[in-house]
Amino acid sequence: MIPTKIDIEASYSRVQPFVHRTPILTSTLINEITGTIVYFKCENLQKTGAFKIRGAINAIHQLSKKQKKAGVVTHSSGNFAQAVSLAAKQLGVKAYIVMPSNSPKIKIDAVKKYGGIITFSETTVISREMLAKQIQQKTGATFLHSSNNINVILGQGTAAVEFFEDHTELDFVITPVGGGGLIAGTALAAKYYGNNCKVIGGEPFVADDAYRSLISGKIENNTNTNTIADGLKTQLGDINFPIIKELVDEIIRVKESEIIDAMKLFWERMKIIIEPSSAVPFAALIRNKDRFKNKNIGIIITGGNVDLSHLPF
Amino acid sequence: MIPTKIDIEASYSRVQPFVHRTPILTSTLINEITGTIVYFKCENLQKTGAFKIRGAINAIHQLSKKQKKAGVVTHSSGNFAQAVSLAAKQLGVKAYIVMPSNSPKIKIDAVKKYGGIITFSETTVISREMLAKQIQQKTGATFLHSSNNINVILGQGTAAVEFFEDHTELDFVITPVGGGGLIAGTALAAKYYGNNCKVIGGEPFVADDAYRSLISGKIENNTNTNTIADGLKTQLGDINFPIIKELVDEIIRVKESEIIDAMKLFWERMKIIIEPSSAVPFAALIRNKDRFKNKNIGIIITGGNVDLSHLPF
Repeated sequence: MIPTKIDIEASYSRVQPFVHRTPILTSTLINEITGTIVYFKCENLQKTGAFKIRGAINAIHQLSKKQKKAGVVTHSSGNFAQAVSLAAKQLGVKAYIVMPSNSPKIKIDAVKKYGGIITFSETTVISREMLAKQIQQKTGATFLHSSNNINVILGQGTAAVEFFEDHTELDFVITPVGGGGLIAGTALAAKYYGNNCKVIGGEPFVADDAYRSLISGKIENNTNTNTIADGLKTQLGDINFPIIKELVDEIIRVKESEIIDAMKLFWERMKIIIEPSSAVPFAALIRNKDRFKNKNIGIIITGGNVDLSHLPF
Repeated sequence: MIPTKIDIEASYSRVQPFVHRTPILTSTLINEITGTIVYFKCENLQKTGAFKIRGAINAIHQLSKKQKKAGVVTHSSGNFAQAVSLAAKQLGVKAYIVMPSNSPKIKIDAVKKYGGIITFSETTVISREMLAKQIQQKTGATFLHSSNNINVILGQGTAAVEFFEDHTELDFVITPVGGGGLIAGTALAAKYYGNNCKVIGGEPFVADDAYRSLISGKIENNTNTNTIADGLKTQLGDINFPIIKELVDEIIRVKESEIIDAMKLFWERMKIIIEPSSAVPFAALIRNKDRFKNKNIGIIITGGNVDLSHLPF
């Protein structure tokens, strides 16, 4: 069941008052290098430094009064932890956040600042999931999945709604693919607001579960996720995959060195800090620039939360 | 002779069509940390990655037809080289650029890309000046000083004009002080467009010529310029100093470690790349936050051209 235009419109109304309308930036030099006209939707300048607040707002906003009173719980080592904490705070809801004990201090501090109630887990996914479940049972909090939740997906799609409001001429939108929430939401936005705009995913070669899933028609697993694009290690889910299968045109895979080069080029030319995951769609464009020649390309820059002490260049 | 409002208005009309109106960004978190309301005018997102294109356009635009035909010449290891190259290109004028042979490759490449005709000098200031003079004599090109030229000063002031157009409520504007062009132009803009807005300079302790000059009333030299803020090593000049003496309220000095901390905080929170020189006024604000409490502060972020392979953190 693909959500309707009314679903995404309603999500946009819910999300809009709580987020920045992020700028869409361009660079003459990057257009020259790629031979395309490329627009960057800068969700790295979004509240919490990433697009994920959109999905968190949309999901928490729709909880019942009773659910809101009990709070929400999620597990995340990354941007979703901050997103849920701030979204919950904005909506007056308690947020229980399970974070691996080795999470970067800056992320832990940010979650605390937004009022998230942290429980530290071991670093394995199983430990995180188990702890989140325990908290859910103890507190009655609603579990929020970072990507496999239809309201999260619809919320993430609102970045692309803004994109299409300003640029109806986009021929392609390229997003990174991790858990699949953003690309599914973007594909929905493109279906209802785009002008025959195709949606393409960018994915690291070393964590190409989405690429293989689109080919096989069923959700494939990653055996190895040793990528610098740490936001893209998660798997697709049974709620976002049907949307991706129906509406996403293609997944383009990129090498680790291409991700680093694209990230550096972006930092140097745009003067904007993007995290490695956000460089993946840009790397996909550069890798295929002949194919995209003279087209209008939209790229969603998903986040800017990087550890400045451990840069890859 | 302090330039009039008409001078700065005319400069703005000349400059505006050739530059970006750069965004003015804010951060709730940085406001909380500083206890002020601070607006950042992001000239690092300006063409060539720095404000200097404004002064270059204003100066070259006013050359006579004959002068334009002969071209312009300057010496610079930094942002002014790129600014003059692009401004000259936009105005159909030849630009001769003297660059020290040890200039970063990325800056050399940028100057070339903008069509600047490069002559490499030795690394001393004397060698640069001598070569520029030789080119001037040989070609008849007009020499453009990066900060001690009244049209350059007026051009640099147009960033603050835009600032005041959007934020009449500013109590203070803080800029870095290097050669003095930006702060002199900003002080002129504040005089004519500000609402009793004070202009303050930020300067490294280790290159505090402007601080000492304001106290002594005459241009003081730096004996040592061993600062990370490489854009702020130059001296004040006889054209900008009288303006600074009359219109700038104060110079605040900051330590090297404060510059690095401010730069890192800005990168982390704003997701925007600023060069060390641009972090100096922000460091000056943080160092004096009690004094600026609850005030409306404008900071001009001057540039974002950094060598990503040699970051101080």
